[in-house]
Amino acid sequence: MSDNSFGRLFRVTTWGESHGPAIGCVIDGCPPRLKLSEEDIQPWLDRRRPGQSRFTTQRREADRVKILSGVFEGQTTGTPISLLIENTDQRSRDYGEIAQRYRPGHADIAYDLKYGIRDYRGGGRSSARETAMRVAAGAVARVVLRELVGKHLTIRGALTSIGSLSIERERWDWGEIERNPFWCPDAEILPQWSAELDRVRKSGSSIGATLEVVAEGVPAGLGEPVYGKLDAELASALMGINGAKGVEIGEGFHAAQLRGEDNADPMYPAEGDAKVPTFASNHAGGILGGISTSQPLVARMAMKPTSSILIPVPSVDRTGAPVEVQTKGRHDPCIGVRAVPVAEAMVACTVVDHLLRHHAQCGW
Amino acid sequence: MSDNSFGRLFRVTTWGESHGPAIGCVIDGCPPRLKLSEEDIQPWLDRRRPGQSRFTTQRREADRVKILSGVFEGQTTGTPISLLIENTDQRSRDYGEIAQRYRPGHADIAYDLKYGIRDYRGGGRSSARETAMRVAAGAVARVVLRELVGKHLTIRGALTSIGSLSIERERWDWGEIERNPFWCPDAEILPQWSAELDRVRKSGSSIGATLEVVAEGVPAGLGEPVYGKLDAELASALMGINGAKGVEIGEGFHAAQLRGEDNADPMYPAEGDAKVPTFASNHAGGILGGISTSQPLVARMAMKPTSSILIPVPSVDRTGAPVEVQTKGRHDPCIGVRAVPVAEAMVACTVVDHLLRHHAQCGW
Amino acid sequence: MSDNSFGRLFRVTTWGESHGPAIGCVIDGCPPRLKLSEEDIQPWLDRRRPGQSRFTTQRREADRVKILSGVFEGQTTGTPISLLIENTDQRSRDYGEIAQRYRPGHADIAYDLKYGIRDYRGGGRSSARETAMRVAAGAVARVVLRELVGKHLTIRGALTSIGSLSIERERWDWGEIERNPFWCPDAEILPQWSAELDRVRKSGSSIGATLEVVAEGVPAGLGEPVYGKLDAELASALMGINGAKGVEIGEGFHAAQLRGEDNADPMYPAEGDAKVPTFASNHAGGILGGISTSQPLVARMAMKPTSSILIPVPSVDRTGAPVEVQTKGRHDPCIGVRAVPVAEAMVACTVVDHLLRHHAQCGW
Amino acid sequence: MSDNSFGRLFRVTTWGESHGPAIGCVIDGCPPRLKLSEEDIQPWLDRRRPGQSRFTTQRREADRVKILSGVFEGQTTGTPISLLIENTDQRSRDYGEIAQRYRPGHADIAYDLKYGIRDYRGGGRSSARETAMRVAAGAVARVVLRELVGKHLTIRGALTSIGSLSIERERWDWGEIERNPFWCPDAEILPQWSAELDRVRKSGSSIGATLEVVAEGVPAGLGEPVYGKLDAELASALMGINGAKGVEIGEGFHAAQLRGEDNADPMYPAEGDAKVPTFASNHAGGILGGISTSQPLVARMAMKPTSSILIPVPSVDRTGAPVEVQTKGRHDPCIGVRAVPVAEAMVACTVVDHLLRHHAQCGW
Repeated sequence: MSDNSFGRLFRVTTWGESHGPAIGCVIDGCPPRLKLSEEDIQPWLDRRRPGQSRFTTQRREADRVKILSGVFEGQTTGTPISLLIENTDQRSRDYGEIAQRYRPGHADIAYDLKYGIRDYRGGGRSSARETAMRVAAGAVARVVLRELVGKHLTIRGALTSIGSLSIERERWDWGEIERNPFWCPDAEILPQWSAELDRVRKSGSSIGATLEVVAEGVPAGLGEPVYGKLDAELASALMGINGAKGVEIGEGFHAAQLRGEDNADPMYPAEGDAKVPTFASNHAGGILGGISTSQPLVARMAMKPTSSILIPVPSVDRTGAPVEVQTKGRHDPCIGVRAVPVAEAMVACTVVDHLLRHHAQCGW
Repeated sequence: MSDNSFGRLFRVTTWGESHGPAIGCVIDGCPPRLKLSEEDIQPWLDRRRPGQSRFTTQRREADRVKILSGVFEGQTTGTPISLLIENTDQRSRDYGEIAQRYRPGHADIAYDLKYGIRDYRGGGRSSARETAMRVAAGAVARVVLRELVGKHLTIRGALTSIGSLSIERERWDWGEIERNPFWCPDAEILPQWSAELDRVRKSGSSIGATLEVVAEGVPAGLGEPVYGKLDAELASALMGINGAKGVEIGEGFHAAQLRGEDNADPMYPAEGDAKVPTFASNHAGGILGGISTSQPLVARMAMKPTSSILIPVPSVDRTGAPVEVQTKGRHDPCIGVRAVPVAEAMVACTVVDHLLRHHAQCGW
Repeated sequence: MSDNSFGRLFRVTTWGESHGPAIGCVIDGCPPRLKLSEEDIQPWLDRRRPGQSRFTTQRREADRVKILSGVFEGQTTGTPISLLIENTDQRSRDYGEIAQRYRPGHADIAYDLKYGIRDYRGGGRSSARETAMRVAAGAVARVVLRELVGKHLTIRGALTSIGSLSIERERWDWGEIERNPFWCPDAEILPQWSAELDRVRKSGSSIGATLEVVAEGVPAGLGEPVYGKLDAELASALMGINGAKGVEIGEGFHAAQLRGEDNADPMYPAEGDAKVPTFASNHAGGILGGISTSQPLVARMAMKPTSSILIPVPSVDRTGAPVEVQTKGRHDPCIGVRAVPVAEAMVACTVVDHLLRHHAQCGW
Repeated sequence: MSDNSFGRLFRVTTWGESHGPAIGCVIDGCPPRLKLSEEDIQPWLDRRRPGQSRFTTQRREADRVKILSGVFEGQTTGTPISLLIENTDQRSRDYGEIAQRYRPGHADIAYDLKYGIRDYRGGGRSSARETAMRVAAGAVARVVLRELVGKHLTIRGALTSIGSLSIERERWDWGEIERNPFWCPDAEILPQWSAELDRVRKSGSSIGATLEVVAEGVPAGLGEPVYGKLDAELASALMGINGAKGVEIGEGFHAAQLRGEDNADPMYPAEGDAKVPTFASNHAGGILGGISTSQPLVARMAMKPTSSILIPVPSVDRTGAPVEVQTKGRHDPCIGVRAVPVAEAMVACTVVDHLLRHHAQCGW
């Protein structure tokens, strides 16, 4: 079986290759009577779009999303929402080399091993271009959350390290995120990041990164025991992003070094009219037993350095003969940067899916 | 919706509470005409069983698995395989305290928030007891892999750290695993681990751990773009284990610190009659673009310290009133230890599921 | 893939062979906090049980259902409900003949063609014994409907013809159903049916039948466009019952002979405080565009004559050699009779599944 | 949840409204390396297209299908195949009446009851226009069957009755199908059908019909016990077509009148190099125990008369007030006619889906 769908009840199916005529997705299961227009989606795509600084690939895509179905007179109708973006920047070029050679770290050889064929133009289906539709679907998910839960629910991501340069958590400022091209919440580290990325880019290399997504205002009770746990599905959602190599929830790998009393989140009586106790800390990352507790969901992920580098790496071609691969062309030196809005979108889709799943069994 | 099933085509549905009459699972989709008996399953359960050393809970369960369907004259028939284990150690006791108080770090409050009811006896459905059925299903998955792929396919797990005491990778010896109660591949660190766990246990505390599962001999081509990627599904499979807080594939979080050339896995022409190139390294952990490459699959995970500790932690009861929770009774000081066979089993089930999925679309 | 599960959100997975140690099912997705005990299920099983009149097989099964999980202190907990019935009437006998010969009209040859192996004892997995678990799951579905919709929702079935002897619809009396062994709503036709069945039985033959299930009080709005239509899923649910050869909704095949004006269901303003218009007729069978309208759901099905007959039929054995098959042993002369409670149960499960599906997207 | 997808492993998701900018579908799970172009799909759409005779609606759609993804250099790549047809005949018109009034027999009221909103233009999502994508997907399914099974596998449909005018089965001639606008296999009944349809059309009425689909050359072993039986899924596939009211397999409802010996399909030793015995008859319709036997699959269905008629029918408007509805505009007097290629397509998709499902568990 193939599996180009995400979610069970808020089900997103994406399609399209990097250099085909278009990419798109179908969202099935969106609740009816929600206000939705292309204006709700486009800004999120614009945030992800490449070519906005010298730190991302110079591919220029207008990336104008069109809603082809499922919306009538400005409202969702409950029928599938089809979104489409035309590929307008398919430069005609010679693909001879990429067609024959397997780029190390890329899906090239894996697709050939699996399917015996691959659309090699720009990476085809395995291109990060596919993630545009994740962002589009995430924008629709945000509309659902705004209407069904409320505006106090926020899902925000930030880049937390580039290479070995980590932010200082004490300086975390969400407002800063929108003021720099790195989704960086720590203004002071920016000059170092810029310098490092310039070094990396000039040397034809690339660099890894970590990022974090925080969802605040998520209702308690979301997540399905025992194989559809919210943390398990967030892990899957994030690990499925191109280049992801690790996922953490809450305290994450650090929890492996802690004693029980240091990892405990003490609870105190609920404050005000809250229905849920006050937690003194959030080592758990907002999830207990796979179910949200109304604390902030905190997920972190590791992105590998871009595999496409100017530095030659030994490889083989389709005949199995030895070659050296040196990837020219437009590439992000740090794919972690542009992964931030994608990770946010995946979290948004996961939360909506679980919201509807919870509704089904336990009521609204 | 609820979600007590794992896998798409090799579909495992588990049921049962810690202190109910029994636990069990149904495996649907197992290929027919494979030799299978209880003797193929029981040894794996025995490996996981608690009470085998002073480092695990003293709960004693015979854990005799029974096959109730799907096997005829020693062979699988292609119909669902029902497995059942009776709960024989349901000590009658007073649950008054656990019934009313929310244990910090446990699913108690989350189940109440979600369902408005919970079987509090021994943690009910959220108890680690459920993982016995994962191990049982994993044993059946191993039979499928042995028959469909071959005996050269191995799936093995090891504990790689307890607290801040990590093994030395140069000393890794798979043979050592079977000779100690920790699944530890490094004989030299054993005395330190024993001492540390004794300290932890005596202080009424608990400690976190990391573990690693390596699957060798997995065929190339498994994994489904773009939302059923093998790494994404491994992440989900492992993060869904009770107490998991992080998952890594291959280089994992360390990749976030690397340059592209340091994370690259150079390829060289295939050796002998291999169909797949030789990889000079395995930073990728055996997966490119979500698809296996025939290199070893390498997954790592972080386990939090056991939440049940003798040290009191502030909490609330069902009425919202403040209480202190101090968990007496039988508990593992380090749940990471017993998670090893569970993690192996989840990887085995994931690989079989993807093997069948690949068969469906691309042939055997 | 195998598919021993029914439903999406109210998901029933059955397992077990006719002559294995037990049969069972797991129900995943049942809403929490519903009163449920074995006493809610057993009466429905008793209704279906064979051996209650001379018109059904004399196999005697106590068929005592046990709830093994998912219920705590008399209420559902939202976790999977495991039901089990032991097979107590597995007569030891010589299966040599049925093991080697393919009974015409049975699944024997089909299982061998598919799996290359089959549990031939009593038909194994393809035995009608499996339908006991459908009835058990249907009983749980009825509890859900009673709690979530109300007692005014009824799902009732009736046998409408045996061979060419059809009931008179004007004489339809639901009360009569419980007073005869045929689920017959027409008291006057009973003597003819009895005589016909006696003739059939004595001649070693069997006879077909039709039955009808009517669900009243089903809320409007259930059914999912465009591939999960309520009528499509009812069709699947009923056609999946052993021996079913046809399914109709509302006017059914007769609609193919009608003019548009004769098949129209005129609507008039809602009466009283009803939210839905008054329909002057119900040719539609309660479903428009795949969605329930609050009119009674009406489904009809055709059951073939029992394939097991004393009259010899030419067949082949496993080696392909010609044989004659004459089925001795315990068999219902008219499997349609015992299909009535099974069909009711399938309708109940389908309606609950769609109720939860509707809740998920559109609210309670 | 919404459900606009069909199939498990050959998964078709359709989207689009009658008068939106376009309709489309995404096919996920198609095996790789099959030759596929728009030329493989277009002819099947042309067969279904309205406006080809005076007996179908005069809506004129070019219905040019475009492949937007999943095909590279003329071959499928294993990635999702996106198909799109622009809606070119969206006549601007006044929808005031249909917007406010519920057309009897249509989904209008049902969509409003379910979603509280509907795209009323041309019936929106519930329009038969959606079936164009079923035909397109069916064309891709035929390509898969041709490549994976062979050209001897044929799936053909025929109209078998209009109103009470049934064909004579002895005169059945598949060649005739292509020579008349009714998919009629019986040349002699054609004049009567034409006359009847003219009468119906002139009187502003409509008429029901039955049709039959026969699939020959389907391999043995397809179908999944016990809830994914091939007959159950064919029933669902056909009952989900707009206007369907009944489905039969093989002997169908007639089986309910038969004795066991008359419904039996005797088997004789296989002829030539066939692996499957010779069946002397096919009352079973090619399926035993839910599994194909290699005999022809025979499915029949009943289509209701078109609900849109010029004859006024009492109804209500959105406010609940009484109105009379008289449907002007372009409508087929007998929707059964154009359902034939749709039914063929649904059978083709069902067979491919089960072929892949069988492969997954039991091998190719």
